[in-house]
Amino acid sequence: MDYIKEYKKKTRKSAILFSKSSRFHVNGVSHNIRYYAPYPFVVKSSAGKSIVDVDGNRYTDYWMGHWSLILGHAPTKVKESLRKQIEKGWMYGTVNEQTMSLSELISKAVPVAEKIRYVTSGTEATMYSVRLARSVTGKKIIAKIDGGWHGYTSDLLKSVNWPFTESESSGVVNEEKIVSIPYNNLEESLAILKKHSKDLAGVIIEPVLGGGGCIPAEPEYLKGIEEFCKKNNSLFILDEIVTGFRFRYGCLYPTMHLDPDIVTLGKIVGGGMAIGVMCGKKEIMEFADTTGKKKSERSYVGGGTFSANPASMTSGFATLSVLKNGKSVYSKINGLGDYARSELSKAFDGNAVITGRGSLFMTHFVKNGIEHVRNSADAAKCDTEKLQRYHFNMISSDGIFFLPGKLGAVSNAHTKEDIKKMVSVSEKMEL
Amino acid sequence: MDYIKEYKKKTRKSAILFSKSSRFHVNGVSHNIRYYAPYPFVVKSSAGKSIVDVDGNRYTDYWMGHWSLILGHAPTKVKESLRKQIEKGWMYGTVNEQTMSLSELISKAVPVAEKIRYVTSGTEATMYSVRLARSVTGKKIIAKIDGGWHGYTSDLLKSVNWPFTESESSGVVNEEKIVSIPYNNLEESLAILKKHSKDLAGVIIEPVLGGGGCIPAEPEYLKGIEEFCKKNNSLFILDEIVTGFRFRYGCLYPTMHLDPDIVTLGKIVGGGMAIGVMCGKKEIMEFADTTGKKKSERSYVGGGTFSANPASMTSGFATLSVLKNGKSVYSKINGLGDYARSELSKAFDGNAVITGRGSLFMTHFVKNGIEHVRNSADAAKCDTEKLQRYHFNMISSDGIFFLPGKLGAVSNAHTKEDIKKMVSVSEKMEL
Repeated sequence: MDYIKEYKKKTRKSAILFSKSSRFHVNGVSHNIRYYAPYPFVVKSSAGKSIVDVDGNRYTDYWMGHWSLILGHAPTKVKESLRKQIEKGWMYGTVNEQTMSLSELISKAVPVAEKIRYVTSGTEATMYSVRLARSVTGKKIIAKIDGGWHGYTSDLLKSVNWPFTESESSGVVNEEKIVSIPYNNLEESLAILKKHSKDLAGVIIEPVLGGGGCIPAEPEYLKGIEEFCKKNNSLFILDEIVTGFRFRYGCLYPTMHLDPDIVTLGKIVGGGMAIGVMCGKKEIMEFADTTGKKKSERSYVGGGTFSANPASMTSGFATLSVLKNGKSVYSKINGLGDYARSELSKAFDGNAVITGRGSLFMTHFVKNGIEHVRNSADAAKCDTEKLQRYHFNMISSDGIFFLPGKLGAVSNAHTKEDIKKMVSVSEKMEL
Repeated sequence: MDYIKEYKKKTRKSAILFSKSSRFHVNGVSHNIRYYAPYPFVVKSSAGKSIVDVDGNRYTDYWMGHWSLILGHAPTKVKESLRKQIEKGWMYGTVNEQTMSLSELISKAVPVAEKIRYVTSGTEATMYSVRLARSVTGKKIIAKIDGGWHGYTSDLLKSVNWPFTESESSGVVNEEKIVSIPYNNLEESLAILKKHSKDLAGVIIEPVLGGGGCIPAEPEYLKGIEEFCKKNNSLFILDEIVTGFRFRYGCLYPTMHLDPDIVTLGKIVGGGMAIGVMCGKKEIMEFADTTGKKKSERSYVGGGTFSANPASMTSGFATLSVLKNGKSVYSKINGLGDYARSELSKAFDGNAVITGRGSLFMTHFVKNGIEHVRNSADAAKCDTEKLQRYHFNMISSDGIFFLPGKLGAVSNAHTKEDIKKMVSVSEKMEL
């Protein structure tokens, strides 16, 4: 089957609109990863498990808005809340009661959230966390994971893509303040951290690598890094933008008995509206307090025009309320994720490793002798072109959407039938 | 009159909620500037020219969501569009037709927008612009204005507040790559730029200083800086996040016959929903193209989960559509701004200079021999405590809201009667 030809036939209007988009926008997109060849389809609407393109094709969506939509697209209760909020305005630029409602939920569910600050995006949340770590410790180096992705902030733009040694971008000026450590390899990580311990402000880690390959951290790895941080007066920062409220009502770290200083949130806690959140221990977050400290001591932390805007706060509150009152959401989607992993594993019969946790899963077609995928290097050595082809073919012939090459997220709008269909087309596909 | 006592009496519920907010949040807020003593009132809803607090007090709002709401709060046409969009989902995470509609308007109205990239906030837009300038020129230094404010990005966090020589924050690592020049002082600015010309990647300037005191740039100043940039292979970047679509349908720079390389937009073009925009010449923006260039040559530019989300795109499109089809909006609000400036000037009878342009205005109570306010240093030397008191007193006794110490923005929802009332209470106030 000629999947590209088939795709072009089904997406004629998208082709025209995308060529228009290419006139207006760099790469035709507003996020590099949203482009795939020959051109991405152009969405016009969404509902539940589906997105619909301008040609009227309906796709069962496993991309789910960069994995932010745990309840599916436009879920009724969130939609109703947003509709009511829109009536009352969507931008106050002031302290508002909508914020208090969301903070009440987050502070109860996330122990480290002794103090919260809302910002506009995950990129902002990680940028401010890094700044805060430097302010608190008076040190400058930040360690991150090979393949760790924390948004585009200049403060963390290093060692994102295999082989992790090349610069990620021209025009960045503080790469020498970032060091990189191998995920799930405690011995080597500690050896690198030790070299920098005198100037190490903090370590930032996702407890499940997101962009880096949907790979859970081994608990003893995180525990070991945390211990090192505590011994060396460096902050231990967990980036839970992907994982927060993804596997349970709260963060992932308490289930691993960890004690981070700062945790970043985003995605799910905004219910699909723009959000970034810094949560931290009181004594840490107080370095951002402008009322007590001198400018040279405190940390200038966001804030921004859209921080704590009532639309994001309402959307986040409504989403967390559903999750809180319907804890079966987690048993359902975690179960579907387990099912997807085990069935895909069978379907690919030794040719793929399916990584992930709970409702997140990702297929890695093995190659170069890789048998386990424990870090981004392993993931990069797998057959990533085959993965692209696999995802693209599902878009073209089966109405199933993964952003090509990325992990899939099961939402509450998906059913077991959806997973079965996805597994069954995977099984039959010639790659 | 005891304005603080009066305020406390009127805002009892706000007091309780703000004390709750202080438990949850650093400084009780999510943006440092939103705090003022004894506590900010807590908003529950907004409509037209007004915001309403949790005690039911209604304020005529000149803060207008960080000056983003040019049509007032929740204007009908934007609200209707948003309501329809909410039905179709608010987060696609993909290329979408809503983006195309907004880009079509922006690219027609803003000549430099040969290519557009949407990001989530103004902070992100300026961060990427700086990175892009460094990528394009292969140089590292960025010059900004004393008192210029471009968001919290580490790349521009210097010389924001008087006396401009102190660090703005601990925990920042690349301040040595930022130099600062005095606004509206071409000779001194050029002298500083000359010292750095070999490594000068670009200069970023707001054509009307926003946070720095609502001060228009003198056209020959901008012209002179632009000429220097062009001669020295440095990019000329205009930050029009505040000024874009504020005075006319389009940017301010074409009226000054300027030819910037990059222009940042935000606020108004998102209609109050989260947005940041980089607009630039094709040959500049193409450095962000990931399809042609090597990683080490190109510029890694956002993007983010929420970039070009359909809610922001729809809200922006609806707002610009109203502005495009109702050009009288500008003659009305610019006229009201002129009126506010001249009447306030009379009311304060030589004791204040009212700066601004079009619908933006700001009162500076003269002190220290200041007669003109041409830059942020002049503004800082004025009686800023008196300004805080003036604004606070209007909140307390007159139901008029300026964020204390900040400039005011007239929206299309304001009337001449509103301005008259504001002037009249200003006249009578004992400060």
